[in-house]
Amino acid sequence: MRIAVLGTGAVGRTLADRLAGQGHDVVIGTRDVDATLARTESASPGQPPFTAWQAEHPRIRLLTFAAAAGHAETVFNATSGMGALRALQAAGEANLAGKVLIDVSNALDFSGGMPPVLKPVNTDSVGEQIQRAFPEARVVKALNTMNCQIMVDPARIPGEHNAFICGDDAAAKAAVTELLASFGWPREAIIDLGDIGASRGTEMVLLLWLRLMQAFGDADFNFAVLRAS
Amino acid sequence: MRIAVLGTGAVGRTLADRLAGQGHDVVIGTRDVDATLARTESASPGQPPFTAWQAEHPRIRLLTFAAAAGHAETVFNATSGMGALRALQAAGEANLAGKVLIDVSNALDFSGGMPPVLKPVNTDSVGEQIQRAFPEARVVKALNTMNCQIMVDPARIPGEHNAFICGDDAAAKAAVTELLASFGWPREAIIDLGDIGASRGTEMVLLLWLRLMQAFGDADFNFAVLRAS
Repeated sequence: MRIAVLGTGAVGRTLADRLAGQGHDVVIGTRDVDATLARTESASPGQPPFTAWQAEHPRIRLLTFAAAAGHAETVFNATSGMGALRALQAAGEANLAGKVLIDVSNALDFSGGMPPVLKPVNTDSVGEQIQRAFPEARVVKALNTMNCQIMVDPARIPGEHNAFICGDDAAAKAAVTELLASFGWPREAIIDLGDIGASRGTEMVLLLWLRLMQAFGDADFNFAVLRAS
Repeated sequence: MRIAVLGTGAVGRTLADRLAGQGHDVVIGTRDVDATLARTESASPGQPPFTAWQAEHPRIRLLTFAAAAGHAETVFNATSGMGALRALQAAGEANLAGKVLIDVSNALDFSGGMPPVLKPVNTDSVGEQIQRAFPEARVVKALNTMNCQIMVDPARIPGEHNAFICGDDAAAKAAVTELLASFGWPREAIIDLGDIGASRGTEMVLLLWLRLMQAFGDADFNFAVLRAS
């Protein structure tokens, strides 16, 4: 499949690497290709500049958001949630129309210091904003409740744990379920929360996630939902 | 132990019943004793009026918030989160000072219809509001991420699942851990998230909880956190 991953950070790289390893035709999208390639410093601790990463992943091309989305049949939004709408506007409505758009982002606003706040919250979510802004895109919110290493390799956490999906397009959710299954997610571990409005729920869990990361000292954990019956 | 449970709803009744069954001296607090006893209709579907419940639990006395808190060494806030501060003000600062105050509430505002919104959110929480309003109380946020049946009987959900606690007073958290252990919570299943600020995380998870309840058609589930190591 031709897949675009929008976002050059750790989440985008991890998804792109995994998808390319599965044999998909993967491109990464960025706002300004030259600027991304010109950066020589680490964007965050332990993360090499994009050029260093790309040297080890020569088959994954770096394109503009628009060229990447235009190339793809399926698009991952792995930009930061705060910048997601701007990135997708740059990708272009026509390049997203009719496509499965998997939103893995969280709009954590760190501008006021720690802990971050979520914007929007309660009455809206990034997932819903994206679906409203791009009504022809088939948005599925998924995988945003865990570290990116776990997204693409759930077996690194022993035991039965869960991925949540939601969206308004049942066929798109079925397609995302297949993609997740290809990452190793057991189908019964993928919980369909209903329409895209459930993004509020999965995004708002991030503040608990951050507290758990603080308590554990690592991000190598995931949520599970256990039922009585 | 002398324990006051503030709140006559399903959560308050379930906690009071369990604690009384363990041999504690349990009282339930309400705003207006006469008004609570005068109600003949169900407060919510499937829930008998308080008098019917009390007829089956004659050892559990109904008192005003102030009398209940004054009687107790340990206080549960099982009022609705939206009314928690008013209820605790009625209980009285002096009656809460120095006591372990276990806040199990969630401030879900249904006034705008479904889905509810959380107030406060992001930059504050009910747990923090209570601790600020009653600086001498030893507030521990606990058990608010699950149905009340599970709070007092975790074994009804098979497998390893978790309870979260947070608060500023380590000895109070240790006391709550013992209470939870007496309900059947394995100590290793109780995750200490740190200071009372973590209430933001455990309260904000409620929107996901509500979506899960909708998806499952029941509330008989709980969260677990699975770690790689």
